[in-house]
Amino acid sequence: MNHQPLNPSFAGELRESFAQQAIMRLIGAELTRVEPGVVEISLPYRTDLTQQHGYLHAGIVTTIADTACGYAAYTLMPPGSGVLSVEFKVNLLRPARGERFVAQAEVVKAGKTLTVVRADVFGVSSDGHRELVAAMQGTMFCLDIQSDT
Amino acid sequence: MNHQPLNPSFAGELRESFAQQAIMRLIGAELTRVEPGVVEISLPYRTDLTQQHGYLHAGIVTTIADTACGYAAYTLMPPGSGVLSVEFKVNLLRPARGERFVAQAEVVKAGKTLTVVRADVFGVSSDGHRELVAAMQGTMFCLDIQSDT
Amino acid sequence: MNHQPLNPSFAGELRESFAQQAIMRLIGAELTRVEPGVVEISLPYRTDLTQQHGYLHAGIVTTIADTACGYAAYTLMPPGSGVLSVEFKVNLLRPARGERFVAQAEVVKAGKTLTVVRADVFGVSSDGHRELVAAMQGTMFCLDIQSDT
Amino acid sequence: MNHQPLNPSFAGELRESFAQQAIMRLIGAELTRVEPGVVEISLPYRTDLTQQHGYLHAGIVTTIADTACGYAAYTLMPPGSGVLSVEFKVNLLRPARGERFVAQAEVVKAGKTLTVVRADVFGVSSDGHRELVAAMQGTMFCLDIQSDT
Repeated sequence: MNHQPLNPSFAGELRESFAQQAIMRLIGAELTRVEPGVVEISLPYRTDLTQQHGYLHAGIVTTIADTACGYAAYTLMPPGSGVLSVEFKVNLLRPARGERFVAQAEVVKAGKTLTVVRADVFGVSSDGHRELVAAMQGTMFCLDIQSDT
Repeated sequence: MNHQPLNPSFAGELRESFAQQAIMRLIGAELTRVEPGVVEISLPYRTDLTQQHGYLHAGIVTTIADTACGYAAYTLMPPGSGVLSVEFKVNLLRPARGERFVAQAEVVKAGKTLTVVRADVFGVSSDGHRELVAAMQGTMFCLDIQSDT
Repeated sequence: MNHQPLNPSFAGELRESFAQQAIMRLIGAELTRVEPGVVEISLPYRTDLTQQHGYLHAGIVTTIADTACGYAAYTLMPPGSGVLSVEFKVNLLRPARGERFVAQAEVVKAGKTLTVVRADVFGVSSDGHRELVAAMQGTMFCLDIQSDT
Repeated sequence: MNHQPLNPSFAGELRESFAQQAIMRLIGAELTRVEPGVVEISLPYRTDLTQQHGYLHAGIVTTIADTACGYAAYTLMPPGSGVLSVEFKVNLLRPARGERFVAQAEVVKAGKTLTVVRADVFGVSSDGHRELVAAMQGTMFCLDIQSDT
């Protein structure tokens, strides 16, 4: 898909915004790719992020997928925008096991108010093998921050 | 709705399982209600659980809603079962602000393999005012742990 | 929930709009309840609406649930509005059998731009017994038709 | 993705099952592609399939997407299986206009009991231009028909 950014400073502003997501520091997530329409977030496995069977909790899988989707939408928004999650749906495909996890989000349709994004979350083993563990499809809202203030 | 438990020890086993969800300790979530078909989880607000605007991150809203849904399904499963999330959909209705958050899940339809659950997540202010911040609808899978081992 | 209509003529306008949904005539659906925040649509079973096992096709279950959700949102919109479906999620709980089907939608949260709605679809047997066959949770968009023209 | 069929007669059985979906005849839908893990359904525009603004009703968009998803899952199921929709989520990306519509479904993850599928629905104009109008992500259930009878 050909994604055309409207805000020339999107990458820097996105990194600043990401740095303000306190939850990303708490769980240890990092921004590993920022391109027009595409954002990737990586998260090393930690035992304090798990559910009762020792796998990454579905809510944490969702946390990195949602942030990736929100920022993927943000890359295509005009200057002075903020992004909010409207809704998302997540299918958990396999137990979320891996040495680390990678959430890759890509815009499906960018709109003036609403942007639809899909994300795939992979579990990556120590030998680099990737396995799809979850798939998200969601809607992001473009907030006109500049006009609001 | 009339929910009939099949496992007389469901409440104790559920509490043991919850205690093994390491992520619940990390974020500070507590189990505040366990009844047949109904589970409630509470989470005090903390600044390290937030997104870029200082509200509770949608992924953490989802984390407590998903655990509440999973265990609500669990209360109606036969002895020797485990529960897995198949999928969920979350609508974020308002910025997730509050002194604490309460996720209330109730089973919509319990099945042999699949159970459908809805959860409402409320933000509760310091004066006790509750506001609905998110609504989840999801599917839980009944794992036959006893036969697997 | 307390739903306050903003458009005093919502019921009449809604019925006119429903009459223009050609698909409702094709499948034989009727509007059976219109109140602020709540809309109900009924559909008699017909063999030409079925999937391969003779049950009502999930897409037709969705068709009446979506129209009910859209119009439930519409009842709370200001004068001069149109309604569009943004997204919905449907859980199919049982085979959709019945002499007729009833989709009941109720607004969960009405907003200026987006309204979240839930719908339950029941199968009704010839003796009047109702069984929940599907649950929808979706988002509707308020289109400012007056300003557009 | 590499999809490996388990049932050598899947294509013929799928076509027989499709022929029994009475709703497909009513709306005029055709099966236009059947491959392991991939199914495509086409539907010419008709005025009796529309919502109040003259576009294809979201429920009919869903009807062809759901059938495409169900049969895409079916292509990878073992002999003697039936398929049921568990749930799906649909994002409506644009007004569904076109001379005809094409729903393309592809399996994301095939499992023993549950299979996750994504579908894209395109509106095709008279000059052949395609525009994405909807995106579905859903779960299909593998029913063991042989053992049930």
